Amino acid sequence: MKKKILILGSTGSIGRATLDVIYEQNDSFEILGLACKDNIQLLNEQIQKFKPKYVCVDDKQFKTQVQFSKKRLLAGMKGIKDLIGMDADIVMNAMPGSIGLEPTIEALEKNKTVALANKESMVMAGRLVKRLLQRRNGSLIPVDSEHSALYQIMKASDQDELKRLIITASGGPFRNFKKARLKVVKPRDALNHPTWKMGAKITLDSATLMNKGLEVIEARWLFDIDPVRIQVLIHPESIIHGIVEHVDNSFIAYLAYPDMRIPISYALNEEKRRPLPFGALNTDNMFKLTFYPPDTDRFPSLKIALEALAIGDSTVIAMNAANEVAAHAFIDGKIKFTEIPVLIEKTLEQHHGSAIIEDMEEILEIHQWATQFTEEKIRKNYE
Amino acid sequence: MKKKILILGSTGSIGRATLDVIYEQNDSFEILGLACKDNIQLLNEQIQKFKPKYVCVDDKQFKTQVQFSKKRLLAGMKGIKDLIGMDADIVMNAMPGSIGLEPTIEALEKNKTVALANKESMVMAGRLVKRLLQRRNGSLIPVDSEHSALYQIMKASDQDELKRLIITASGGPFRNFKKARLKVVKPRDALNHPTWKMGAKITLDSATLMNKGLEVIEARWLFDIDPVRIQVLIHPESIIHGIVEHVDNSFIAYLAYPDMRIPISYALNEEKRRPLPFGALNTDNMFKLTFYPPDTDRFPSLKIALEALAIGDSTVIAMNAANEVAAHAFIDGKIKFTEIPVLIEKTLEQHHGSAIIEDMEEILEIHQWATQFTEEKIRKNYE
Repeated sequence: MKKKILILGSTGSIGRATLDVIYEQNDSFEILGLACKDNIQLLNEQIQKFKPKYVCVDDKQFKTQVQFSKKRLLAGMKGIKDLIGMDADIVMNAMPGSIGLEPTIEALEKNKTVALANKESMVMAGRLVKRLLQRRNGSLIPVDSEHSALYQIMKASDQDELKRLIITASGGPFRNFKKARLKVVKPRDALNHPTWKMGAKITLDSATLMNKGLEVIEARWLFDIDPVRIQVLIHPESIIHGIVEHVDNSFIAYLAYPDMRIPISYALNEEKRRPLPFGALNTDNMFKLTFYPPDTDRFPSLKIALEALAIGDSTVIAMNAANEVAAHAFIDGKIKFTEIPVLIEKTLEQHHGSAIIEDMEEILEIHQWATQFTEEKIRKNYE
Repeated sequence: MKKKILILGSTGSIGRATLDVIYEQNDSFEILGLACKDNIQLLNEQIQKFKPKYVCVDDKQFKTQVQFSKKRLLAGMKGIKDLIGMDADIVMNAMPGSIGLEPTIEALEKNKTVALANKESMVMAGRLVKRLLQRRNGSLIPVDSEHSALYQIMKASDQDELKRLIITASGGPFRNFKKARLKVVKPRDALNHPTWKMGAKITLDSATLMNKGLEVIEARWLFDIDPVRIQVLIHPESIIHGIVEHVDNSFIAYLAYPDMRIPISYALNEEKRRPLPFGALNTDNMFKLTFYPPDTDRFPSLKIALEALAIGDSTVIAMNAANEVAAHAFIDGKIKFTEIPVLIEKTLEQHHGSAIIEDMEEILEIHQWATQFTEEKIRKNYE
């Protein structure tokens, strides 16, 4: 029987890659639902090609443009929750940013298997997600390349054999830039990632290294490991995605060409590797892998994220919200690249919250507060 | 309760490394027996430090020099077999060369757990070893760094997910030498390995790349995999020791500083990783890993080994024997480095044997024939 897949964020980078995998393995999957924000043209193409049973758009106003049965066309977060309530075998959460949190929680409460590409779910509510995984029958398979890598290789190690987890980072487009030059980089420079093709927010987060900070936080919850035992290494070739270090000084690493369809296939097939016609890594020619520690002087966002993680849940939620606002402000040309971490720090200076937050409403409140505070700051300073 | 360890080849490189591990983890192990060839001075030191219950030397004539109870002092292959018949929990077979085959077979017939560092056991009698593992209750844990690496990482993959196994090679001391220069290299150049400190025979085999040929043959039997699915990659840094490639184009690799005590500890602890005070790999500085395919034009021994494997068991046995003789002839200054593969090929030209050999006597006969044939050839041509 074919597995029923629900894709949240089908027109984004991960959503499209998910559909690529499903197209190749169409003997195994059928689309229960496609949900997207506002790229209706691409959505219509996806509807034609994949014949989903349901479709959901972010705003009711787009409904008229969607070429699909009006009876099975939903809208908004309510529409997404209705889709999650149906009989999907796997919910692929590929929504970008904090908006992806609610669907993750909803799916786990409904005992679903979630293929999780939305890292904000774990960043904002890792403790809550962990509790839901313990108390209910849902499960979670990471899709982010680094976390999928760690998830896969950790099967070869016992918990008490682990010394550290290492998450690699390409270093982003500015990894060799001097501090002075970082002040004048333009959004289009930041959005030109050297190895991965991704959405705007995550590409920018890669340039600031905040993306790695968020990934360390995600790993902390996914793998239930003390944050001080998670290390970040810059690896410009983006071939090794995750490394486990053992107490006997050995390491196990996961390697793949940077193609998200590989971890997506692993998640959709519920932890099974199947032949793929893409993402081949040629080992017949000379190749080289390099590694070095990150420079948190030039890229303070990583340090800010790790410090927030050390302080506690509330600070992490505020930090993530402030970064989200600051990142978009830079993309929109409102602030300088180097002002992103400054803004986050300014927001955190004014934030004093609890180290343990498990309540969804509280999470959303803190997120809301930090979002507004950072937006206000930008308005005052730069407009 | 402490595990009783029998070490065959205690004064060699692997034997000494094994004792290092046991010294560090002396809460877990006691020495049932130490067996060595003729380094009696070191043996006496080991006896003092480790208080073995039994000791065995290669030749009765050495007995008088051994400072040990004469009642529990054995000699020769008979002595080794007697030791294997006792209540060892693990037999570490660290004997070098074809002489190590008989103890492996004896131990598996006696249902022992064998920590196998002697690759000739698998090269000469892989099919027989595999049959013994199926029919009896013994088990085998590989100690060779490449095979331990593959053995460890394969726990994270299902059999049907495997595409290829990749074994890395440092490339040896001559990896950048031109063909003409290889004709004039001296034994002392060949015995100076860039990354590993090992015995003479294996160090020379690393220089000719025959060592990788033998390792491919060993892997073929250990992992029951079609030889065409085993690839060799030159990796001068010797940090990645084995790589598994999956059908989804992902790879899992095992990394460690080149220190045999790491895989030895894994084997002695029966596939458990324990803290070790040596072999740390510093990831705080910039580091680089490079890979490229082997050049079988300059290093034909690897090609000869793979071709022998494709032909069948008998050819492999003859090839291994011819290499053993030729390698020692080069070490003894009797032939040139580039004549090693020529001699092996000359022997194989005269050899016509069966593709399937499972009988110990037959194995030893073929080995004997090829040994004598190659020795004869050297005598005629070079003396």
